[in-house]
Amino acid sequence: MNMQTIGRLHSALDNAVLQELTQLLGERVTVASAACMRHGQDESYHAPFPPDAVVYPASTAEVVAIVKICHSHRVAIVPYGVGTSLEGHIAALHGGVCIDMGRMNQVLEVNAEDMDARVEAGVTRKQLHSHIRDTGLFFPVDPGADATIGGMAATRASGTTAVRYGTMRENVLGLTVVLADGSIVRTGTRARKSAAGYDLTHLFVGSEGTLGVITEIALRLHPVPQATTSAVCPFATLEGAVNSVMLTIQSGIPVARIELLDEVQMRGVNRYSKLDYPLLPTLFFEFHGTDAGAAEQAQMVGEIAREHGGLEFQWASRPEDRSRLWQARHDTLYAGMSLRPESRALVTDVCVPISKLAECVLETRRDIDTSGLIAPIVGHVGDGNFHLLILVDPNNAAEIERAMALNTRLVNRALGMGGTCTGEHGVGYGKIEFVEQEHGAGVSVMRTIKMALDPLNLMNPGKIFREVAPTL
Amino acid sequence: MNMQTIGRLHSALDNAVLQELTQLLGERVTVASAACMRHGQDESYHAPFPPDAVVYPASTAEVVAIVKICHSHRVAIVPYGVGTSLEGHIAALHGGVCIDMGRMNQVLEVNAEDMDARVEAGVTRKQLHSHIRDTGLFFPVDPGADATIGGMAATRASGTTAVRYGTMRENVLGLTVVLADGSIVRTGTRARKSAAGYDLTHLFVGSEGTLGVITEIALRLHPVPQATTSAVCPFATLEGAVNSVMLTIQSGIPVARIELLDEVQMRGVNRYSKLDYPLLPTLFFEFHGTDAGAAEQAQMVGEIAREHGGLEFQWASRPEDRSRLWQARHDTLYAGMSLRPESRALVTDVCVPISKLAECVLETRRDIDTSGLIAPIVGHVGDGNFHLLILVDPNNAAEIERAMALNTRLVNRALGMGGTCTGEHGVGYGKIEFVEQEHGAGVSVMRTIKMALDPLNLMNPGKIFREVAPTL
Repeated sequence: MNMQTIGRLHSALDNAVLQELTQLLGERVTVASAACMRHGQDESYHAPFPPDAVVYPASTAEVVAIVKICHSHRVAIVPYGVGTSLEGHIAALHGGVCIDMGRMNQVLEVNAEDMDARVEAGVTRKQLHSHIRDTGLFFPVDPGADATIGGMAATRASGTTAVRYGTMRENVLGLTVVLADGSIVRTGTRARKSAAGYDLTHLFVGSEGTLGVITEIALRLHPVPQATTSAVCPFATLEGAVNSVMLTIQSGIPVARIELLDEVQMRGVNRYSKLDYPLLPTLFFEFHGTDAGAAEQAQMVGEIAREHGGLEFQWASRPEDRSRLWQARHDTLYAGMSLRPESRALVTDVCVPISKLAECVLETRRDIDTSGLIAPIVGHVGDGNFHLLILVDPNNAAEIERAMALNTRLVNRALGMGGTCTGEHGVGYGKIEFVEQEHGAGVSVMRTIKMALDPLNLMNPGKIFREVAPTL
Repeated sequence: MNMQTIGRLHSALDNAVLQELTQLLGERVTVASAACMRHGQDESYHAPFPPDAVVYPASTAEVVAIVKICHSHRVAIVPYGVGTSLEGHIAALHGGVCIDMGRMNQVLEVNAEDMDARVEAGVTRKQLHSHIRDTGLFFPVDPGADATIGGMAATRASGTTAVRYGTMRENVLGLTVVLADGSIVRTGTRARKSAAGYDLTHLFVGSEGTLGVITEIALRLHPVPQATTSAVCPFATLEGAVNSVMLTIQSGIPVARIELLDEVQMRGVNRYSKLDYPLLPTLFFEFHGTDAGAAEQAQMVGEIAREHGGLEFQWASRPEDRSRLWQARHDTLYAGMSLRPESRALVTDVCVPISKLAECVLETRRDIDTSGLIAPIVGHVGDGNFHLLILVDPNNAAEIERAMALNTRLVNRALGMGGTCTGEHGVGYGKIEFVEQEHGAGVSVMRTIKMALDPLNLMNPGKIFREVAPTL
């Protein structure tokens, strides 16, 4: 990397850049070290890299102006939502300017008739949820954290409902993106399908800020089903739980959610959320449909579970009970960490074909047990996606190394089964080598595209793949 | 366009190129004019452009070798499935070599447990359908023609079931692509979701051969539902039919198919398929689900239809009746053309947000009526997508001009409503100006990507956007 090309702000340029940014944004520019520190650290175990300045634009036009200033001075740009990513996505590896999208938090349009919405990038998923509560529609994608829609689009996030409603890949209809040179591109249309040229929407979804700053997102919404029922079901064995998931998916039963928490994770959930579930491998279910349809799904899944050692379904029929149940599921990261105070979680994220799920989960559970590490398993198993929360002492280098070795074995296991190293968390700077292993020549294609659209390598440099040398 | 860079084969290079191709492929190279003519004309009204040679590779390795020969001699490459595209996609605007994928027609893998398959690009959709008939799975995407899976991926095709199962965008899990320099890239994994870097699969789906030659496709399959029921329902008015569609979609009823044929089209269907449906605007339905679920959907849709002037549902419950019904639907292009012998169809393809469907269809019907042209309407209305088959005398320039003016007004209408100029047929060389109008700055991004991945502009040049000047 040519550090004369992408400069930190402590070069001779500093004052000029800061002056221009201040002229544009007034007090919405800061170089205060607390703010910079906070913006350089996500929820992962990865080392923080603070930016040199943080800016708070209020419009796409301001983002354009910021990007143009950075572009003319060759300063790196890191877009920021609320910092809940898990692979160091927002680490300012080359310093530069962090663009905090938090003030762009307007829901711009809700078209109930077309079941779509347009939001600014800083809107969070819970904010959107509240905003559309009375429309009869909902937005399904729900990573555990209350992430921004912009961040979720940038990392191709998913969550508990992807098995039925898809990930951000399936739920983003279009984007407004500011490119590295400050030009604006609007992708997609409001039509539900199109064959009009390259699919730029999907190119930007999951590009982690390396191709541009997402400022607006058009989203697909879904009708709130007539009936929603949730249940938890403990299983005698982990194997029985996972086999039930496989059979449910293979039977084509359209479950809305089917989530696995192993017995270690259940201990954390009970402790953190003050619940008293049995300490057994447990599936969390949700069924959406007409009254008859949801009941029929529940009955079919119930039969499968019983055949595989499932105990009684514990139903949550009142909305507040359902909220409590799913909040407990969404808090699993914090619940897991509560099992070992002062720890940080090294969170893994493999996803495998559904036929390999039992083999992958069970081998991994054995690997954890022999490793001596504490690592609850939790996952969106209907997609073949599951996480270990490997709880490490951040000051114990040897333990971190053992944890990383466990993750490496896990990734190799998943790739060997035709899976991926990351189902939903993304690459950041934490999984670059795994992505090379997974995609081979595909990484060269990604770098070629990156270099074509961002020849100075200013947009979130050092993420997804090894650094691209600027062409200037 | 620098014609010294992309040469036709009648330059001094000819013999060298043909010799190298013949050395590689033996008799699977032809310059016979009948073969070249046939490969330069799709099913559209667009002027044919024959290639200079047609080659028939039998493996990805042979495609690599062909592309390398063309690359070293700067000869254009046009990938070819069965030639059923509708916007001149396979026209060899710069001559060169047409790669007919027809001999790469192996179904390589069917993984019933994971509901996926891997096929060579020359497998047709009906061939795949037969191959997997006994697995309890099916592949839903069904353009009218028996297109190849490779061609369908390249044009981001869809069909009657997209409203429930999505288009090729949602049903391609991964691709093997030979790039312009002969390198091979494999995209995607067998996992159902991934956040591992740029979404190259979606970049190549819909790229119409301009970024590389697709040689293998991994596909998502779906479980054959327990119950499948089909019906047709004539309506007193076109407005009633379209409003029923809007309400069905907005109610979130998961219809598998909901297709509109106006009264003009129904006349063609009856004539071509020897049927006796009422000559009224008609919806074709299909319901998939459990026995109870499919019946419930049918009942809900029946109520909506009755409220909007729908007459009696005519049910097709036996498989052979269903096949007959949907074959009639799939033959609408040929049925429409039967309304005016010796005509060619200028087929339009707009797609609008569902809330605008009635307005768009009814305004368009009035526009057709005042134009004096014969143009049945048929469409995948559950997606907001509908076609006119404007039947023109290919020798009547004035009539063709009136037809194109009608299409231009239609596209402007759709774009004004937030829609797209092409829901599923793609751009080819027929819709380049409309795509510029629709995507503006997005087209520059597409061209930048094209130039980065194919700097010599060898891959299907002249499609999707205006020609890119080669960088050499």
